[in-house]
Formats: sequence, structure tokens, C-alpha cells
Amino acid sequence: MAIDDLQIVERLRETLAAGDRDQVTDLIDELGKGGLARVLTELEEDERIKLWYTLEPEDAAGHFDELPDVQVVATLESLAPDHAARILDVVPSDSQADYISDIETDDRERILEAMLPEEAEDARRLLEYKDDVAGGLMRTEFLAYPEDMTIEGLLEALRNIGEDVRNYEIQYIYVTDRTGTLVGVLQLRDILLRSRTRMLNEVMIAGPSTVRDNDSLDKLEDLFDRVQYLAVPVVDDRHRLLGVLSRHDVEEALGERQEDEYLKSLGIVGGEELRSMPVFLRARRRLSWLSVNIILNIVAASVIAARQDTLEAVIALAVFLPIISDMSGCTGNQAVAVSMRELALGIARPNDAFRVWRQEFAVGLINGVALGGLLGFAAWLWKGNPWLGAVIAVAMVANTIVAVSIGGVVPLVLKRMHFDPALASGPILTTITDVCGFLLVLSLAAAMIERLV
Amino acid sequence: MAIDDLQIVERLRETLAAGDRDQVTDLIDELGKGGLARVLTELEEDERIKLWYTLEPEDAAGHFDELPDVQVVATLESLAPDHAARILDVVPSDSQADYISDIETDDRERILEAMLPEEAEDARRLLEYKDDVAGGLMRTEFLAYPEDMTIEGLLEALRNIGEDVRNYEIQYIYVTDRTGTLVGVLQLRDILLRSRTRMLNEVMIAGPSTVRDNDSLDKLEDLFDRVQYLAVPVVDDRHRLLGVLSRHDVEEALGERQEDEYLKSLGIVGGEELRSMPVFLRARRRLSWLSVNIILNIVAASVIAARQDTLEAVIALAVFLPIISDMSGCTGNQAVAVSMRELALGIARPNDAFRVWRQEFAVGLINGVALGGLLGFAAWLWKGNPWLGAVIAVAMVANTIVAVSIGGVVPLVLKRMHFDPALASGPILTTITDVCGFLLVLSLAAAMIERLV
Repeated sequence: MAIDDLQIVERLRETLAAGDRDQVTDLIDELGKGGLARVLTELEEDERIKLWYTLEPEDAAGHFDELPDVQVVATLESLAPDHAARILDVVPSDSQADYISDIETDDRERILEAMLPEEAEDARRLLEYKDDVAGGLMRTEFLAYPEDMTIEGLLEALRNIGEDVRNYEIQYIYVTDRTGTLVGVLQLRDILLRSRTRMLNEVMIAGPSTVRDNDSLDKLEDLFDRVQYLAVPVVDDRHRLLGVLSRHDVEEALGERQEDEYLKSLGIVGGEELRSMPVFLRARRRLSWLSVNIILNIVAASVIAARQDTLEAVIALAVFLPIISDMSGCTGNQAVAVSMRELALGIARPNDAFRVWRQEFAVGLINGVALGGLLGFAAWLWKGNPWLGAVIAVAMVANTIVAVSIGGVVPLVLKRMHFDPALASGPILTTITDVCGFLLVLSLAAAMIERLV
Repeated sequence: MAIDDLQIVERLRETLAAGDRDQVTDLIDELGKGGLARVLTELEEDERIKLWYTLEPEDAAGHFDELPDVQVVATLESLAPDHAARILDVVPSDSQADYISDIETDDRERILEAMLPEEAEDARRLLEYKDDVAGGLMRTEFLAYPEDMTIEGLLEALRNIGEDVRNYEIQYIYVTDRTGTLVGVLQLRDILLRSRTRMLNEVMIAGPSTVRDNDSLDKLEDLFDRVQYLAVPVVDDRHRLLGVLSRHDVEEALGERQEDEYLKSLGIVGGEELRSMPVFLRARRRLSWLSVNIILNIVAASVIAARQDTLEAVIALAVFLPIISDMSGCTGNQAVAVSMRELALGIARPNDAFRVWRQEFAVGLINGVALGGLLGFAAWLWKGNPWLGAVIAVAMVANTIVAVSIGGVVPLVLKRMHFDPALASGPILTTITDVCGFLLVLSLAAAMIERLV
């Protein structure tokens, strides 16, 4: 926490104590990226709550975007349900449902009951969708007008809604028939350039691209890759218009998935961690993953324990075991990374396992020979025993091939089984390659023990 | 490669041989996500080239978006400069410069010379920017009109440009004075709702938010986090309008950076790898990173070699060395992940190292005691020697604290020194924690050797 932040926190404390809404609003607006999140962690619980009561609900809602979701949810849980509801009423519908779904069940019900009926209804509807399908990502704020309206009538209607359209995606205006079925879409520029006496169904683009409410994120990414639209309408099984899904929302969801994979690949598995969270919660979450890991490590190391006699006879091998373990993890993870990338691009598909294995085998062989040669040569030089070098080199070559084969193929297999392919970069891969590596070194050494001692 | 892809490749081959442009265009349009990229890797070089000559330049340019950049660049290099130029002429300016900058220098000049003069001029201007500043991300297609034009005149002008606006961001129309200086911005809905006799400088929003051409990606992310705009104008030092930067472009660039970090964290460091690349290129790129890694591994393992006498006396220690090495890598990387996340959110800043260290220390202590206790207890049970358990447990506790401290703080230090903080999850961190771990186990064991044997 830098000096200027501390000054801001001090000024904020004074202004909050004085209860000056305008000054508090200005101070918060001045904070740069991450500033509000940092300041919130410095304030006491009662000051934090006072801050949210001091801000207008619209301003509070506007700042939610800058905060990590966990902080927003903690904020909403700390406020009276009434006040939380006032803020949530003005949050765009897609974020609204995301926040509400993370609030504890009791608070959630109370807040929903305190919200404006139509906002609560929208939110409840969105809560039924998973957050990685079109229905969970769409906004329910959109402009739709009947097909028999004229452009003149539409312009009149647009003038009347005025400032309320802030949350609306107005790149497109949708046209529906009397049953709410989507029949067409209007671009703003078409309204500009056509005669005002025309009816909407004369100037609209009929039969526009749509997505279903339960379309998966992969499918949505695929669509937006192929088309140029800024947004597409979301419909139900009877083609009724439910909401609008923008390119922005899909990209944001993809970015979050990518972020999530990155965090997972480094061992943050149980969800987002901020250092302002309670230390025991943070320790417990990290430990839940580490404790699986250490058990797997013990399993792998038991291979060494079982071959202790070989190790005792050739103590030099103990130096090479951690190297082989670490290097096979590295080479395996490179193959995982390329498979993840190719899966994301759609170039590799779950049933391409054989092609991927063939292409990894070639790279594994080349790099195994290079690394094994280097390490074997080092072993030979160190102990003056070419046979020791040969054991290390052969084990390294074989284990590099094992590691890239598993690393390349496992993400595809996981994807096929509808698991998260990013799991492949985790402890299970390294355990398997560790076991193989230890077994290879110690078995080869045992087989030619009389040349090594 | 699945059956249906092979069928498409076969049909494409026949259609290409027959030279039927419409059928080729339709076939390519039918391919789903990643389909074109897969099909291209299956075709022979001469078929690939024929494909690009058969498609209309506009259609070809439209498909570039679906391909990884490396494939687009390889395509452009394989075509005659004239034809490559025809396609690049119709690619949006931001992608145009990205592709051109990756083309080999000789080809690049020839292609630029064959492009339309105004397109080439734009491209050359964008090539001077790094690809992570506003100037490198912006589009140079935008609509700008003089401040003394009337709305009527503007509508007339808009009607005349007609279909050419496909590549234009028309959420906003910009207003400039006679020197090209940006003076205001118009929203389409303002044009709709105001009298047609008004001049643009009467209805525009004066003094709009702008970014400078050399603003960094971090700064741009910060801006778009704070404001709601879909796009902002990019200006030079004299406030002349150079281009338009959309939220979409910034998000895409952020997504690519995230992707890049993810690949790097798994050991793909030299740039994007596709398995369709030549096997020796792939092997060499991966090896350049692995060979650094293996040298560092040998350095770390030399600690074991130096203490071989201790190990010889207590051979059981060899079982625990790989476990301690692996676990400290895991705990360290968790701390790296949290720091990367907090840096990205702006919550942690480069000079927060002390706070981060304090908060990591607490988690490291708790998890070190948990993991060390478990591992020490396992050692005690296995060999029936409580002192062996104590050595392992103490080493594990101390090394967990070392690992989270380094893992938490190093990304901030790297960021402060303007290095890529993702480097912290790499081999250097694990080498340091390996050396510490090996030293701790073997030194502690040496100090109480008479209780262990």
C-alpha cells in the first residue's frame, strides 16, 4: 500500500465521518484501476458499509465492475437486503445474476424479495442458467418493437425512453411479432437512411442469426469467430426473444476461462484468492490441492523406497532422480500447453489423439536424445563411468517420450470425457512421469548393477 | 483428423482442380471453428496456394480471422506479393499491421509496394508502433467530418459511403476542425434525435476522452475499466485524430497476453507452436527452454552431490528429496498465481512487496506445518525413527515458507524492473527452492547424523 493510497484512505475516512455524499463520490471516482479494491481492504468493516450507504445506488453499481467478483459478493452480503437490492436493481442483468448466484442462500432470497419485481423476475430466470451458456451470459435489457410499427413510430418510442437506455445494447433493435417471436433485426443506420413511413418488417433484416439459451461457450465462440456481429439475439425453443448476447460478453467469459486455466495450472484450484481474505481460508484452500499433491508425491517416491538396495549400491543415482523428475514434468507440460492451444483454436479435436501422439513422439525423441545425451555425459564425466552415463541417458530418452506422449494426449482425452483439459497440467501427469522416471532409472541400474559399482 | 474432415479435403481437392470458385467459397464457408486451419494442414503446398488464388481477396481476408497468426503469415509469404497485397488491402488495419510485421523483411517490402498506396501508407504508419500500445492496436478506418457540417450534410455523406463502411466502427462519428484536430464525438442516436439543420459542433460531445498513440496496454485496460465507451479516439501529441481503438481490440489484446502467459507458465516460451510446423523447428524451440532448465537442475542437484556422504549414511533421505523439491515448486507457484492475479486486478502494486511477503509468510507457515507434519510423520512411521521425521518436517516447514515468500514477491519485483512477471513461475524459482530444500534436508541431517544412523 503506497503513500498516496494511505492519504486517500485518510481523506475518505474524514469525508465519510462528515457524511458528505458528493465528496465521497468524487474521491472514489478519482481512484485508478484497482484503487477501490485496495482502499476497501484498508477500511474497517463499519467504514466499508458506511461507504456503500453513502454512495447513490447507481454510483455503487457502476463501481462493481472495477471490483473482483468475490469483493462484490462480500459487499452485498454485508449490506441490509433492502439496500443491496437497490444497488442490484441497477446492475446490468448479466452481472446481476453472476453476483446473486454467489451470495449465500439465505441472503440471496431476502435480497431477491426486496428487489423491483421485474428485476427480481429477470434475475431468477437467469439464475437457472449455468454461467457458461448463452442464457447465463446474455443481457435481458434490449429494445424490441412490433413488426407493424413504422420508422416514425419507432423514432417516437426511442425519444420517449431517453436516458433509460444506458444499460441497453443499442447497436441493434429487434423486431417481434405479436407472440414475442423474433422475426427480424434493425441496424441503427438502416433507420437513419430509410423513409419514415416504412414499417419495420419492410426495412428489417428478416431471419437473423440467433443462438439458443442453452448454447455452450464453445459454440458461442465459434459463432462469433465466423460472423461480424457485435451482438446476437438469444431465443428459446419456440424462437421467442429472451435476451441479447454481445461479442463483448462472450470475450469476457472466454477471458475468464483462460484466466481460470492459468490459475489452475499454477495450483490455485478452489477459486479466486485475494490476499485480503482471511489467512486460514487462504491456507485451507491452497492446502486442499497441496495435500492431494503430497500424497501423489509419496506414492511416486515409494518407487524409490522399494528399490533402495539399488540406490544404496549406486548412491550417485540419488543426484539424478530429482533431475529426471523435474525435467519430465517440464517436457510433459510443454506438450500439454500445445494441446490446450490447439484445442482452443479448434485445430486439435478430442479424437485426434493418435495424430497428436505421433507428432509428440517425434519431438520427444529428438529432445530426449539431446537432454539425455547431455545428462548422461555429465554423469559419465562426474563418476568416470560410461555405464552410469548410459543408464541415465537411456532413462531420460525413454521418460521424455513418455512425458510428451501423456502430456499431448491426456488433454484431448479429458476433453472427450467432458472434463477440464487443463487438469492435465496438474499433479496426476507429474506423478505418472515421476513413477516412470524413477522406475526406469532404478530398473536399468539394477539390471547392470555389476558395471555400476 | 476425423472422417468428415477427410471428406471435405477430398471434395475441396476436386473442386479446386475443377477451378470452381463458387463451390470452393461455399465449401470453405461451411467449415466450423478451426476447420479451415485443419484443412490447410492436410492440403499440399500447391493446393494451398491454389486455394488462396481461387477465393476472392475479400473472402480470403474474411477467413484470416479464423486462422492462427502464424498460418496467415505463412500463407502471405507463399503467395506472389501482388496477390498477397490484394488480400491485405481489404484486411482491417489493425490486423493488417500485425500480419505484415511478422512477414520476412524482403517479402514485406515487396508486398507493401504492391498494396494500394493509401493502405500501404496506413500500414507503414502502424508498423512503427509496438503491438501493445494504442497505436499498434487501433484501426485507422473511422468516420470524421468537419465541425461546421450540418446533420443534413452528414446524413448525405453517410448515404454516399454506403457499403464501404463495413470495416468501420460506426458507433461513433468524430468531429474535427480544419487542422484535423479532434474537437468532438457524435453518437448515432444523437443524430437520430436532433434537428437536421444543426451543425455538428452544436450537437457533438465536446472534448471527448482520448488516448495517446503510445499509451500502454495496461493504461488502456485501466481506461476501459473506468468508462463505458465502446471505443475511444486515438490522438497524437498535437491532438490530431489518428485512429479508433475499440473495447473489443483492447480485450482481444489482453486475452492474447493472458494466453501467452499461460503458455509460458507451461514452458512454451519461444512463441506459438502448432503441431503442423516442421518437427525440428518445434523440437528446437522447446529445447531452447528445456536446456536452460536442465542446467539449472544440474546446479540444484550438485547440492546433493556435495553432501553425498550424509546421503550415504542415511539413504532414506533420497526418497524425500524429490518430494521436497516438487512440493516447494507447487507451493511457490500458488503464491506466483495469486500475485499475478492481484497485479492484473491492480490490487497488488510493484511496491507492495513487504505486505505481500507478510501475507504469504502466514499462509506458508500454516501450510508448511500441515505438509511438514504429514511428511515427517510418514518418515517416522516408515523408518521408526522420530529424528528422521523431525528433520524432514522442519526442512519442509522452512522450505514452504521460502517458496511462498519467493513466489509471492518475485512477480512484483520483476514487474517493477519492467520484466514479464510470469517469468517468476519458471525454472529460476524452482531452482532456488530446490537448492534451499536440498540444503535444508541434508544440513539438518548432517547436524544430527548420530541420531539418524
